Amino acid sequence: MAEDLAPPSIEEIRALLAAMPEVDGAAVAAATEREGQLTKPAGSLGQLEEISSWLSAWQGRHPPAVDHARVCVFAGNHGVAARGVSAFPAEVTVQMVQNFVDGGAAVNQLCQVADADLRVYEMDLDHPTADFTAGPAMTGEGCARAMAYGMMAVEPGIDLLCLGEMGIANTTSASALCNALFGGDAVDWTGPGTGVAGATLAHKTAVVAEGVARHSDARNDPLELLCRLGGNELAAIAGAVLAARMGRVPVLLDGFACTAAAAVLHAAAPGALDHCLVAHCSAEPGHRRLLERLDKKPLLDLGMRLGEASGAALAIGLVRAAAVCHGGMATFGEAGVSGQG
Amino acid sequence: MAEDLAPPSIEEIRALLAAMPEVDGAAVAAATEREGQLTKPAGSLGQLEEISSWLSAWQGRHPPAVDHARVCVFAGNHGVAARGVSAFPAEVTVQMVQNFVDGGAAVNQLCQVADADLRVYEMDLDHPTADFTAGPAMTGEGCARAMAYGMMAVEPGIDLLCLGEMGIANTTSASALCNALFGGDAVDWTGPGTGVAGATLAHKTAVVAEGVARHSDARNDPLELLCRLGGNELAAIAGAVLAARMGRVPVLLDGFACTAAAAVLHAAAPGALDHCLVAHCSAEPGHRRLLERLDKKPLLDLGMRLGEASGAALAIGLVRAAAVCHGGMATFGEAGVSGQG
Repeated sequence: MAEDLAPPSIEEIRALLAAMPEVDGAAVAAATEREGQLTKPAGSLGQLEEISSWLSAWQGRHPPAVDHARVCVFAGNHGVAARGVSAFPAEVTVQMVQNFVDGGAAVNQLCQVADADLRVYEMDLDHPTADFTAGPAMTGEGCARAMAYGMMAVEPGIDLLCLGEMGIANTTSASALCNALFGGDAVDWTGPGTGVAGATLAHKTAVVAEGVARHSDARNDPLELLCRLGGNELAAIAGAVLAARMGRVPVLLDGFACTAAAAVLHAAAPGALDHCLVAHCSAEPGHRRLLERLDKKPLLDLGMRLGEASGAALAIGLVRAAAVCHGGMATFGEAGVSGQG
Repeated sequence: MAEDLAPPSIEEIRALLAAMPEVDGAAVAAATEREGQLTKPAGSLGQLEEISSWLSAWQGRHPPAVDHARVCVFAGNHGVAARGVSAFPAEVTVQMVQNFVDGGAAVNQLCQVADADLRVYEMDLDHPTADFTAGPAMTGEGCARAMAYGMMAVEPGIDLLCLGEMGIANTTSASALCNALFGGDAVDWTGPGTGVAGATLAHKTAVVAEGVARHSDARNDPLELLCRLGGNELAAIAGAVLAARMGRVPVLLDGFACTAAAAVLHAAAPGALDHCLVAHCSAEPGHRRLLERLDKKPLLDLGMRLGEASGAALAIGLVRAAAVCHGGMATFGEAGVSGQG
């Protein structure tokens, strides 16, 4: 997306969703053929074999590579924070953005270990979205602008895109989105977030239910639900996921809020997340439920619940390992190793 | 272990097991104090927080570090291979050792991604152990020599030791060891290994049962079971685990055969594996059962079943990430981030 073009409207985004590129069949066939010749029992690298095939499919090349991984953290503020749904005050969003810039957050350390490029996108933090229990969090135009902002994060040369978020109260927004998109009760989708419990958790759950009820007229329009219940950083993530699909960049999704944002695309267009893997299963209870709805098996399950793309950054090493094994191992023929008897 | 000393006898190894160092309480206390000050909600890095505490405990220092990870692959041949229990011929052991030396195996690629030093130990491959269905696989002296060989792999300066194995038919040996150590039936512990199924798997199971019955008089002596049912590479792994404990080097165990070898120490001395994490849960069905017996939660669960330390090498990045987050993140005070409200 060139920056001098007007951002796409929500209708233009709907058109993109109807025209998504599919897997590169030739790259997948080449991956399958090579995998069977590598010096190991067939299937013995388990999910690593699936990952290298998936990379080939969505990078549209063989062999695949993970040489230019980028981690994008989108930060936004939420009007619903004023309802007292988080364990931390709203000013922590901007403070944590400064911490990212200064290199002091978990994601900074994780990007260093993973040799990944970290970009932090501060989204109008002085202007939180509206409280979704009182009206739509964003206008259609504001939501489209935030999606377009996320789209611009997908620059040429990136071969793996890791997405994550920072935003006090955004698990409240994510829970409302999931509840509205997938049904059930607010309590099914609402969890401790940064660490609320007891009466505060019950209040948070009630706020989620209130928001979902307030916007029930939009229940069959996932993008409209994103406008009404989402937030700037969540819309940006949805935009980035879509732009990555258009640009043939495989995506690693992080935890609950990030996956909820991406799930909007899945609800709008089945298959829209085929180019995405979920990096880890968060300890936030709604995430496991959401992964079941999306039929996604996470790569890691380490009880993390930090957000800020931390799980996605941690999983880069696994995806890179899959690519390097697939590309670098000797074949039975090259190594003079006897095959299966 | 200086190489000019005589290898320890099995009795000397029993004495080491009775004198193992314990956690460094001061290092753990320092880790706990720092962890609570880092810029994240308490507990939000999940198992990564446990790993950094564990590293501190067993490295005996704070902050912990993973700058010099070493991956050791021990290779041995098994007389029981002649019973037709593997999908691959016995000569594959030496061929794969050459593949490791030439850089063509999965573990070579995984060590490159993890920035780890790989050492391959070829253990008298021209002289397989005896077929354990006919008599003891090794003499007590031979087993002690193999354990001492493994002990020598623990050199000064290593801060994380990853262990793994290569040996055609060694899942048969590992299944027999587990069955003898932990009870149940041979079928509970026997699986496809490199890929046997149907009648061959049934035959492999019968061979395991035959071996366990043959050596039932040793059932209460884990080290004696290692001599009778084990193999050179499995004894070396047990030795390396013990030497790492003595030398304060945390250990990552790989899959089924590797964990079975380490389990001998656990059966001989409860707590002997407290300085070990299990890197992944193998698709070999006996591994999950064994992890339950050892009360170990694996870091990864990706359906891998290759051996050769592949799962352990893949998990290095997670352990390093834990150390780097713990050591490198800013505290709430340093970053000026507001704490929990």
